[in-house]
Amino acid sequence: MKKYKTCVMGCTGIVGQQFVKMLNAHPYFEITALSSSKQSAGKKYGNAVIWSMGGDIPEYAKDLMILETSVELLMKKEVKIVFSALPSTIAKDIEVALAKEGIYVFSNANAHRMDDDVPILIPEVNPEHFDLVKTQSYKGKGFIVTNSNCSTTGLVLGLKPLLDFGLTSVIVTTYQAISGAGRHGVSSLDILGNIIPHIKEEEDKIERETRKIFGKIDKEGIKEANLEVNSSCCRTSTREGHLESIVVELNEDVDLETISGAFGSFRGIPQEMRLPTAPEMPIIVRAEENRPQPLLDKDAGTPGRAKGMAVTVGRIRKKAKRVNFFLLVNNLIRGAAGTCILNAEYGIKKNLIK
Amino acid sequence: MKKYKTCVMGCTGIVGQQFVKMLNAHPYFEITALSSSKQSAGKKYGNAVIWSMGGDIPEYAKDLMILETSVELLMKKEVKIVFSALPSTIAKDIEVALAKEGIYVFSNANAHRMDDDVPILIPEVNPEHFDLVKTQSYKGKGFIVTNSNCSTTGLVLGLKPLLDFGLTSVIVTTYQAISGAGRHGVSSLDILGNIIPHIKEEEDKIERETRKIFGKIDKEGIKEANLEVNSSCCRTSTREGHLESIVVELNEDVDLETISGAFGSFRGIPQEMRLPTAPEMPIIVRAEENRPQPLLDKDAGTPGRAKGMAVTVGRIRKKAKRVNFFLLVNNLIRGAAGTCILNAEYGIKKNLIK
Amino acid sequence: MKKYKTCVMGCTGIVGQQFVKMLNAHPYFEITALSSSKQSAGKKYGNAVIWSMGGDIPEYAKDLMILETSVELLMKKEVKIVFSALPSTIAKDIEVALAKEGIYVFSNANAHRMDDDVPILIPEVNPEHFDLVKTQSYKGKGFIVTNSNCSTTGLVLGLKPLLDFGLTSVIVTTYQAISGAGRHGVSSLDILGNIIPHIKEEEDKIERETRKIFGKIDKEGIKEANLEVNSSCCRTSTREGHLESIVVELNEDVDLETISGAFGSFRGIPQEMRLPTAPEMPIIVRAEENRPQPLLDKDAGTPGRAKGMAVTVGRIRKKAKRVNFFLLVNNLIRGAAGTCILNAEYGIKKNLIK
Amino acid sequence: MKKYKTCVMGCTGIVGQQFVKMLNAHPYFEITALSSSKQSAGKKYGNAVIWSMGGDIPEYAKDLMILETSVELLMKKEVKIVFSALPSTIAKDIEVALAKEGIYVFSNANAHRMDDDVPILIPEVNPEHFDLVKTQSYKGKGFIVTNSNCSTTGLVLGLKPLLDFGLTSVIVTTYQAISGAGRHGVSSLDILGNIIPHIKEEEDKIERETRKIFGKIDKEGIKEANLEVNSSCCRTSTREGHLESIVVELNEDVDLETISGAFGSFRGIPQEMRLPTAPEMPIIVRAEENRPQPLLDKDAGTPGRAKGMAVTVGRIRKKAKRVNFFLLVNNLIRGAAGTCILNAEYGIKKNLIK
Repeated sequence: MKKYKTCVMGCTGIVGQQFVKMLNAHPYFEITALSSSKQSAGKKYGNAVIWSMGGDIPEYAKDLMILETSVELLMKKEVKIVFSALPSTIAKDIEVALAKEGIYVFSNANAHRMDDDVPILIPEVNPEHFDLVKTQSYKGKGFIVTNSNCSTTGLVLGLKPLLDFGLTSVIVTTYQAISGAGRHGVSSLDILGNIIPHIKEEEDKIERETRKIFGKIDKEGIKEANLEVNSSCCRTSTREGHLESIVVELNEDVDLETISGAFGSFRGIPQEMRLPTAPEMPIIVRAEENRPQPLLDKDAGTPGRAKGMAVTVGRIRKKAKRVNFFLLVNNLIRGAAGTCILNAEYGIKKNLIK
Repeated sequence: MKKYKTCVMGCTGIVGQQFVKMLNAHPYFEITALSSSKQSAGKKYGNAVIWSMGGDIPEYAKDLMILETSVELLMKKEVKIVFSALPSTIAKDIEVALAKEGIYVFSNANAHRMDDDVPILIPEVNPEHFDLVKTQSYKGKGFIVTNSNCSTTGLVLGLKPLLDFGLTSVIVTTYQAISGAGRHGVSSLDILGNIIPHIKEEEDKIERETRKIFGKIDKEGIKEANLEVNSSCCRTSTREGHLESIVVELNEDVDLETISGAFGSFRGIPQEMRLPTAPEMPIIVRAEENRPQPLLDKDAGTPGRAKGMAVTVGRIRKKAKRVNFFLLVNNLIRGAAGTCILNAEYGIKKNLIK
Repeated sequence: MKKYKTCVMGCTGIVGQQFVKMLNAHPYFEITALSSSKQSAGKKYGNAVIWSMGGDIPEYAKDLMILETSVELLMKKEVKIVFSALPSTIAKDIEVALAKEGIYVFSNANAHRMDDDVPILIPEVNPEHFDLVKTQSYKGKGFIVTNSNCSTTGLVLGLKPLLDFGLTSVIVTTYQAISGAGRHGVSSLDILGNIIPHIKEEEDKIERETRKIFGKIDKEGIKEANLEVNSSCCRTSTREGHLESIVVELNEDVDLETISGAFGSFRGIPQEMRLPTAPEMPIIVRAEENRPQPLLDKDAGTPGRAKGMAVTVGRIRKKAKRVNFFLLVNNLIRGAAGTCILNAEYGIKKNLIK
Repeated sequence: MKKYKTCVMGCTGIVGQQFVKMLNAHPYFEITALSSSKQSAGKKYGNAVIWSMGGDIPEYAKDLMILETSVELLMKKEVKIVFSALPSTIAKDIEVALAKEGIYVFSNANAHRMDDDVPILIPEVNPEHFDLVKTQSYKGKGFIVTNSNCSTTGLVLGLKPLLDFGLTSVIVTTYQAISGAGRHGVSSLDILGNIIPHIKEEEDKIERETRKIFGKIDKEGIKEANLEVNSSCCRTSTREGHLESIVVELNEDVDLETISGAFGSFRGIPQEMRLPTAPEMPIIVRAEENRPQPLLDKDAGTPGRAKGMAVTVGRIRKKAKRVNFFLLVNNLIRGAAGTCILNAEYGIKKNLIK
């Protein structure tokens, strides 16, 4: 199989590094460009990055010269696919400009998530939303596909198997890791031994993105799901892995075993297609009384390329039609770079990328 | 005013130490005895305790010889009031035995909380429940009064002002400090940089205790409130102060200012009576977008004896009849020793203690 | 006693806040001005500061309008004394300019510490160095007095009583709290669950400042002590209090009791003069096998104004002429604002300030 | 190659788990038995252990029935080699009894380390000490070989390349991770946000073990090295990886490049023999100004079986004949299970095991 020339934009940040790590020796993508802000441009990646992913920088990336993020430079490099880990304010214009030039943009940035013609895609959850790109009016054949906010990704994966039971209301309370805020996002004086009950715009993102992801597509575009989503978000003294306490109301009174079975047996299209970054089981159910935990479950998923791509569910409890459970999602992998890559893999297998 | 001869049982643990600290120079109580398990009995308190309250051990306690916890020894010391920080299994029998001998037991232990004739008392919330002690059939004039679990105490204080708006449902999700589990309750390997989504029996306690505290007393005793309480509890990497994310359903659609005002203007009987350990304002409302936080708000309350006795509420949000807010309660002070002492102060002022 | 009109420069940072807290109701100083960078200037202190000192902002400071740090504005306010918590780059010029205008500058900044005519003063250690200000050639009567780096302050206090035994060599290894790096100095991703074996320029400061502080003053100025100082510095996951492991070589083989006694009985001029911020005992010796600890000993000192002003020494061990011990210094109080204030108190009592 | 029937004693603790993990699919050892205390005996390993090694329990171990640690049971299983992760008090007698029965004991326990006829072996450092087992008088052909305390192992690896320059004195100050104290060794209330300047017996172990390891063997046994070792040990809020600040005095004044080169080019017999658990480079030198760090360097070593088997050295500084550097050793791998396994691999390759 021919590999696509690919660029990681925003390659020095935490999510950018996660892309660089996960794309090492990837069967579909050949990383021929890495881009960043002026500050790092012109330096070798190995010299410019403060690597925080554990282990060493992949060999392929060490000597790549970082480009300044610009349409011209990426065109010159004949890049076909970009993974965007840019800050939203910067992503906004350049992602559109790239799509206009026929480049396929898979973006972890928030900038275009709520655009009418841009899907927020989690391929186990709403693969049909990929079709939205057909309504994008860029002159070339490029498009923009986004994945959701890290907390949302975990949430919708956990909710998907419950849709069959008539999900009517969701209350989610989060315990989010510091890596979710990026390299310098949280000062140690603020968080060490503390909890901060506020993450800028996070609650709004979770509520709106969830309704969009569970929306229906028809001729006129996307129609948001009529689902009550209530969220409260906290930053905690953890490094990796967002924990979520989820309370749902169902239309049916289903027994615990059925619910647990629905989680454990859930498979999506990425599993059917055996996409490289798809975990065998998207949801892992733990029977222990004290799981999931960030430290123990952040790497859940199939060892290798899909490590960290499964969410973990535990402590399922119910009273009548109300069900409680905890869920853990790796915010950097499943919640960011990993799903973004999975989206591109899916696009390629669906022949949506030329 | 004559001071009552008083004993702190379980004086070497975290809550026991908090009692010893808060009872220093108290206007109502004279600590004439400290009791503990065999292991520490016979030693001076200053030598036996691993003091973890900050500052120094109060002078009055340093040279007190620790007694083994036993009815006989306390009788001999002519103790009139005991504050119990005993483990529940040990508290169970001895608290009854002490009450039978005419001793007034104020207990932070879980053992008798759900007994039909024992009140769980938070004097700002359900002072009328003190009357339950009259149904206790101990031959002498002693009785047992308990305070609630640390998380419950914070919760019911926060819910009390909302009762007027027709509270019908409560969903609470907690971020609990390690000090809540006692001196050796949580291994550092388990919690450092981690979250544990399980605290033994905690969720059940919160749900049952809340319904009992909001119950009505009539001739036949207590009738639990018909209130749906749903809780999910986690241990986090914090030292002191339990944070709670609370979602309530009201019967009325009240505006935010009214709700915020109800919190901030709430006063209870301890405030009216100006009890020594009562904070001026039981609930402090913070307007900042990122409060309450354990590190910044754990000491909320009136400086001096009532430091840590106020709960802090923040981030009040609403959609129709559903209201979200965060609440912080100092688990060792308001959630344990402080309320227990406040109960005894109230009992004395009400002339329920001879 | 008349109070001096005083300004805290750099009032919104961590050390600035510590000054504002410690100067509350001070018998010598009346804070009539607070200054900061443009960003906060023009705002009320209570609105501009992110208060992180625990408790509330002192009443006196809440409504003070912050000035932009400038000689003109401070002159206009007729300020006589300034406490400087400015960043070194900014402190460099303005501190000189203020001294030239007759203002007495007590500075925690690093900028002028190693200037030939500027003393690094720890009044328990080298009060005679105050005389250096006489060699400062500012046209008015102002001067600059600095205190040392936070780690150095702890170290020299611990070494002072050992000088009598012929101190020849010092090896110090530090465990430094994040508050030492200021409000946003250490990213949580860098330090949570980690140790960073590097603090910019810290080792050099410790070595040079120590030799200057123990230097002798003669007509030609200061002559650095001939003392070998070797330091290795780490940032650790602690909030407040720098721990230091100290190994010294003495000329004499003194027994442990003598050394311990020398620490415990040490008193300096601030104790003799009963300065308001002087602790009764500058060095507290702990006999326990596991002290000093940051959490338990950071507040050592006399309760009230001198809380946190004592260093704590423990685990004294020796083999022949080599002595090991641990020392804890509160980096914000004794290591910064507290000693700076003590220097000004000493200057006033010595009539060096008009 | 025939595999040896092997047992891990003390299989449920932290070090025991590390053995179970590292011995998965090992080319020399077949784990046919796992032993533990009565409490876990009779249970399947997968059910008895609270796995804290990340990832899943190796398949081979999941269904192994845990034996109670006893000579009889191990004999019955025809075990030839045991790896001992027992507590010292239990290890003391049973390790001798096993050796008497012809079993080869490789022990991480402290019990016999200082016995005259038992080597403390780090095969890169003192492989010739293996000969000491010939002086062990057990009737069969078994023997006891120990590895050193976790901090000592790191230290002696770092010192070995410096011996050529005439090492005369060592001062080591440690920053030790909580995992070094075992599963429940450190209460979270003691260590969270704190440092404890005391680890029971650790300083004594470091000093004595180092002198023994660098000792010379002659006919009369081992003669300890005449080397001054001074150590100060602290527990810090880190999970894995002991950091050490090391100051040495050399006989020669060697330049920095020579010292750095000596670290980086150092190889030992395990590297020559290409033992399965030997890292390619036992010492990795980092040029960055802020390394080694526990989080970033704990896994140093060759990926796969020798991950975590290299120590990392950084911040090498010198003044005349005094050299400072920081060193990081993975306390569970190189400092415990890993070296113990390496010792057994070496014994097999040397034909010292039948």
